[in-house]
Amino acid sequence: MKEVRVAIVGAGWMGRAHATAFRTVPMVFGREPAMPVLEVVADVNEGAAKALAEEFGFARWTTDWRDVLGDPRVDVVDITTPNDLHPPIAIAAAEAGKHVYCEKPLANTAAEAKAMTDAAEKAGVVTLVGFNYLKNPGQGFAKAIIDKGEIGAVNLFRGTFDQDFMSDPDVPFSWRQDRKIAGSGALGDMASHTLSYSQYLVGEIDEVCGMTGTFIKERRVAAGGSGHSAKATADAPRRAVENDDVVQFLIRYTSGAMGVIEASRIGTGRKLWLTYEIQGSKGALFYTQERMNEVQLYRHTEPAAERGYKTVFIGPEHPNYGAFFPIPGIGLGYNDQKIIEAHDLVVAIATGKKAFPDFRFGLEINRVVDAVLKSVDERRWVKISEIA
Amino acid sequence: MKEVRVAIVGAGWMGRAHATAFRTVPMVFGREPAMPVLEVVADVNEGAAKALAEEFGFARWTTDWRDVLGDPRVDVVDITTPNDLHPPIAIAAAEAGKHVYCEKPLANTAAEAKAMTDAAEKAGVVTLVGFNYLKNPGQGFAKAIIDKGEIGAVNLFRGTFDQDFMSDPDVPFSWRQDRKIAGSGALGDMASHTLSYSQYLVGEIDEVCGMTGTFIKERRVAAGGSGHSAKATADAPRRAVENDDVVQFLIRYTSGAMGVIEASRIGTGRKLWLTYEIQGSKGALFYTQERMNEVQLYRHTEPAAERGYKTVFIGPEHPNYGAFFPIPGIGLGYNDQKIIEAHDLVVAIATGKKAFPDFRFGLEINRVVDAVLKSVDERRWVKISEIA
Amino acid sequence: MKEVRVAIVGAGWMGRAHATAFRTVPMVFGREPAMPVLEVVADVNEGAAKALAEEFGFARWTTDWRDVLGDPRVDVVDITTPNDLHPPIAIAAAEAGKHVYCEKPLANTAAEAKAMTDAAEKAGVVTLVGFNYLKNPGQGFAKAIIDKGEIGAVNLFRGTFDQDFMSDPDVPFSWRQDRKIAGSGALGDMASHTLSYSQYLVGEIDEVCGMTGTFIKERRVAAGGSGHSAKATADAPRRAVENDDVVQFLIRYTSGAMGVIEASRIGTGRKLWLTYEIQGSKGALFYTQERMNEVQLYRHTEPAAERGYKTVFIGPEHPNYGAFFPIPGIGLGYNDQKIIEAHDLVVAIATGKKAFPDFRFGLEINRVVDAVLKSVDERRWVKISEIA
Amino acid sequence: MKEVRVAIVGAGWMGRAHATAFRTVPMVFGREPAMPVLEVVADVNEGAAKALAEEFGFARWTTDWRDVLGDPRVDVVDITTPNDLHPPIAIAAAEAGKHVYCEKPLANTAAEAKAMTDAAEKAGVVTLVGFNYLKNPGQGFAKAIIDKGEIGAVNLFRGTFDQDFMSDPDVPFSWRQDRKIAGSGALGDMASHTLSYSQYLVGEIDEVCGMTGTFIKERRVAAGGSGHSAKATADAPRRAVENDDVVQFLIRYTSGAMGVIEASRIGTGRKLWLTYEIQGSKGALFYTQERMNEVQLYRHTEPAAERGYKTVFIGPEHPNYGAFFPIPGIGLGYNDQKIIEAHDLVVAIATGKKAFPDFRFGLEINRVVDAVLKSVDERRWVKISEIA
Repeated sequence: MKEVRVAIVGAGWMGRAHATAFRTVPMVFGREPAMPVLEVVADVNEGAAKALAEEFGFARWTTDWRDVLGDPRVDVVDITTPNDLHPPIAIAAAEAGKHVYCEKPLANTAAEAKAMTDAAEKAGVVTLVGFNYLKNPGQGFAKAIIDKGEIGAVNLFRGTFDQDFMSDPDVPFSWRQDRKIAGSGALGDMASHTLSYSQYLVGEIDEVCGMTGTFIKERRVAAGGSGHSAKATADAPRRAVENDDVVQFLIRYTSGAMGVIEASRIGTGRKLWLTYEIQGSKGALFYTQERMNEVQLYRHTEPAAERGYKTVFIGPEHPNYGAFFPIPGIGLGYNDQKIIEAHDLVVAIATGKKAFPDFRFGLEINRVVDAVLKSVDERRWVKISEIA
Repeated sequence: MKEVRVAIVGAGWMGRAHATAFRTVPMVFGREPAMPVLEVVADVNEGAAKALAEEFGFARWTTDWRDVLGDPRVDVVDITTPNDLHPPIAIAAAEAGKHVYCEKPLANTAAEAKAMTDAAEKAGVVTLVGFNYLKNPGQGFAKAIIDKGEIGAVNLFRGTFDQDFMSDPDVPFSWRQDRKIAGSGALGDMASHTLSYSQYLVGEIDEVCGMTGTFIKERRVAAGGSGHSAKATADAPRRAVENDDVVQFLIRYTSGAMGVIEASRIGTGRKLWLTYEIQGSKGALFYTQERMNEVQLYRHTEPAAERGYKTVFIGPEHPNYGAFFPIPGIGLGYNDQKIIEAHDLVVAIATGKKAFPDFRFGLEINRVVDAVLKSVDERRWVKISEIA
Repeated sequence: MKEVRVAIVGAGWMGRAHATAFRTVPMVFGREPAMPVLEVVADVNEGAAKALAEEFGFARWTTDWRDVLGDPRVDVVDITTPNDLHPPIAIAAAEAGKHVYCEKPLANTAAEAKAMTDAAEKAGVVTLVGFNYLKNPGQGFAKAIIDKGEIGAVNLFRGTFDQDFMSDPDVPFSWRQDRKIAGSGALGDMASHTLSYSQYLVGEIDEVCGMTGTFIKERRVAAGGSGHSAKATADAPRRAVENDDVVQFLIRYTSGAMGVIEASRIGTGRKLWLTYEIQGSKGALFYTQERMNEVQLYRHTEPAAERGYKTVFIGPEHPNYGAFFPIPGIGLGYNDQKIIEAHDLVVAIATGKKAFPDFRFGLEINRVVDAVLKSVDERRWVKISEIA
Repeated sequence: MKEVRVAIVGAGWMGRAHATAFRTVPMVFGREPAMPVLEVVADVNEGAAKALAEEFGFARWTTDWRDVLGDPRVDVVDITTPNDLHPPIAIAAAEAGKHVYCEKPLANTAAEAKAMTDAAEKAGVVTLVGFNYLKNPGQGFAKAIIDKGEIGAVNLFRGTFDQDFMSDPDVPFSWRQDRKIAGSGALGDMASHTLSYSQYLVGEIDEVCGMTGTFIKERRVAAGGSGHSAKATADAPRRAVENDDVVQFLIRYTSGAMGVIEASRIGTGRKLWLTYEIQGSKGALFYTQERMNEVQLYRHTEPAAERGYKTVFIGPEHPNYGAFFPIPGIGLGYNDQKIIEAHDLVVAIATGKKAFPDFRFGLEINRVVDAVLKSVDERRWVKISEIA
């Protein structure tokens, strides 16, 4: 039995989620074609690295991610750090011949994403970007419906990603509002997921025109960190929010299809309103991550008396679901998406095939993000081709 | 008991709907403060005018709408003709001192709408534009929620109007695709309704940036008319579609709020997907006309353990519902909206008050429509103030 | 043009609803094959009779329903009185050769309903019972689906009728809680509607076993009447509630299918939760009157990857909808069901055909109601054949 | 750090699910107060036992469950065998002083369940029955709402459990249709889950009256086993289905509340339609496992203009959710319920407290199941007190 040995860089919440996913992969998918092995965890916070290592049974830990590059026992470097560290780690890892698994967005800028993609493609390593929402079996189902032409030519894509965890102005400042670390706000952090649907299901974008807004101009800084449960005292210092709370942009696809994507981290009323509606000449699809076990399908080709949106529960007929449950509707959760993603990575590495979505896929999303930012700055339509 | 005597201009489907509404008003609302009386119907099609007159008990009929202007027995001129005839009839009616009830959109251009509004305001007559979806009791409920500050400051408006009655390319050409008669397509015909929500519930728009698309480039011309049930033979001549099947535009409100409106007459999968979502700093509202007896309300100010969108069925606590039913959830229909609209007109005329939505309200919508068209033509953001 | 001249007995809320429906019929359906004419209204309350007559243009009014029996200008007697008056009026009308339109339930007991049915069948007059929820175009659609075998053999019927207008113990006593006038409570008033679906869509019942409950044992008596908006003062006298707030009963159909029906007038949370779910060997249907423009259809015969409940909006392909609107999803309301019902009556009388649902249909429902009451009293399964 | 060492008896699908849950517990909840350790797996099928042991890292395996009883390294015996083996294993385990974790239903008969409960209580061991649907954080939320009196006195419980994995008559015979192994059909297998809600949220049942139906009288026997993916050839032998496809029963609670529970394994159209609606004097709750991240809450005490069912996504304010995600709506899945269950067991054993739901809870459900069967056989209402 082959092993895929993993070095996780970043021992925070997402590093833990990845470790959990790797540990669960063989329990769900079995041990073929390979078993992931937690080899090493790196974090500048020594305590965090050590704790994760012990808890999840990593063979060792380090405070310097560079340690893992020359380590022959490491097959894949898994990057779960803040966004600004993705490029140096990914490039170094690829140059060291390691496969690279990187959380989304691939980078804060298209230029950095391009350097990462070039490095990885030159090195010929397997890459995978953590757009885990694509791993829901429903997305493979939707893709097959579209590819078979069952909804005809796609005319319109309408996508969102709203959450309201920042709606309350008392929620303290977090690194996600720090432009240097996070890049853009709702755009890069959230709309990038919506763009992953757009790119997977509809295809290449020709041009965009967008607007952004920051409605809560400053937030208090919590003393003890900036996680989801952090609380700032009433007299805590305030810091300016440096990126967008809300983004909305128009899309013209190369195919001629039209689109709109919206994202908001102050999307009051919505918890995980990551949605798409795809209208074609013969049918349509609707999906929301809030009801992640359901895909809505409409066929205009049915008899007029019986047309309507149909709620299809994902099941063993759809990709990967059968590894979990033998009948539809039992209920996958968010963590299960991450398990499928980790499994896809392991399979690609073990079989020498490309993984999906790879760095090039992630780069294309970064280019759209940059084009949206440029269109906001210059108040005009921007072609994706304007972004190098 | 006072009477409000009505002259309907246009004996088509919408003229019939208005006549039905007027006839039903006293059965629902009683006879106070006034009774509408069907006085005269005008239509160039003599047969249509005569038939409607006989069927609904109009006192008389005519083939020339100018006949009604000097008729002292007419209190209000009700215009249900194609859009291009709205301005001459409305202006002449106002100048003749008649109150004017006009179907939406008020006009095909803001300039025409302005002339109509000026004429009506100068004459001091009551005006009402048929944005009947505003008459749903749910909209008054939503307005009250917003005005009381219960969802806080509005940050985002997301509106749509999708229908799929034109999705099938075999549906023949209709006057709605004729730019000269109808003006724009989905924009003026459908998005104008969405704009009526936006204007009523959120307020003044500062600037817009939009795009349009025509996906079915030409349609066959049916021999026997162009109603919803018309069918063209396979060898029927084809005619170019002259306006937009789909429109999408970004909005910046004067308040700083952001918005997107989308409309499509090839909105596959949607039957009456006239919707809005309004996100505020403290709560949110969602509404779809497909479920016209329900308003969704969310309060972020509730305890975290119990926050969620609530489905409120319209009922006797909301405007006008009590005239129909004593308890909530019994079920209003589209025609009931029109009855409320006709009643509002009658009350305004009888009591000498302004009606809502009046010509100025309709003019503001026409200005936004023109700004969107200009932004599409010139591929840039357009201020509403650029439209005279 | 033939006229169908109507005598309405009962000038209350329901009498007004019938009058409105008759007046609207020709506006929706045209004047063929006949026009309903409001001939006379009878009510012991002279003021109510006179007011309704004037408001709706009845030719005359009377305080004694017997007056209409010998009146040759009356074609049909329309009974909208409290339940206990249905039998004497209906029998006398039939014996006088009048067609009879009677609100539901047909009677308070099966014995009375039988006498009414026998009298009408002997006289050969047209009869129609006001189970207006059957008139929703969605029910004709569901019936066609079942009759074509598209959901296979029906195995299970699950029906409800919950409303919460009596949930609040401060809502005063009404005639609906008076056993002498209303008979049973939620059972006869509400479950009878659910039974009308059951009988129409599934068929004959063999036996039942039920239970009832009265959770609010007494209510205050309002001084000024007992309508939905009545309010009793804190010191008002109290009166015992004499019939069921809630009923639930098991059903075995003659076909072998199984069923449950539940109804509650203290059905907290539900506004018009008149629903059914019908599970067959090949598919299923779900309907709720709260969303009266939608029917849910499921086909187990579709490919496993695409099975799911489909939301079908009623439209012109379904019975009667086309008389209202040319495209689906525009929105019928409760009053539109009543218009269809009144039209069905007029057509039947004008064409000499039977109307649906007739007295025999209503009688079968009364027999089930009596069987349920007997099963509650005797705490055992009761065959419908035990009810004469 | 304390360890809780587990012996799993039964290496099938459910045994694997338990092993996965135990392995995941520390990744979600951390290692305090104790870590579960997979000590030994027992299965008469040696290959299955060995494979599970190797795959999940059990210290050892055996083909005889009796081996684990005297093993001092075993703290808890976890029974995932077919139902008929629950009693002997559980009783022997308890007598050996082992804590016992047993899949539901506790036993096929109340008598057996009583023997198990008596043995466990006498031995003073911790017990837990695998009614995992109770572990959804939404149920703890619902329980708190009810206990705080926020929906007032409960008047009505309406529960279901429909799945359609057996709707197709071509699905082969499985052990679930074998009365000797499985006991009843939909009643014991599915309605027992619904009863677990009823018992947890509403309380003690006084009497029941039920009916059952077997609509597919015989099924073909698949050569290669009877799992969810088994297929029988067209010429396979047929075997009579020995228990109920469908069950429906009326409930009278000790409190006076009324109820109905229905379950069907041929519940066409439903995938995991495990639902309840609880109507109280002041509010109501609705839940369906098909949307397991949502609880519907209604408060009749809100202002009349704003009453409606609210969709509350489960989140960190509800029990155990916070161990998974820091914000609501992220999406738990079925497997996460099982992780919570396994964690609850570990905590109870480590802290010496009782676990929930224990054998006594499971016994009460078995008593109701037996009462329903008796009521079906004898066609009458049966008191739970009639069941020993």
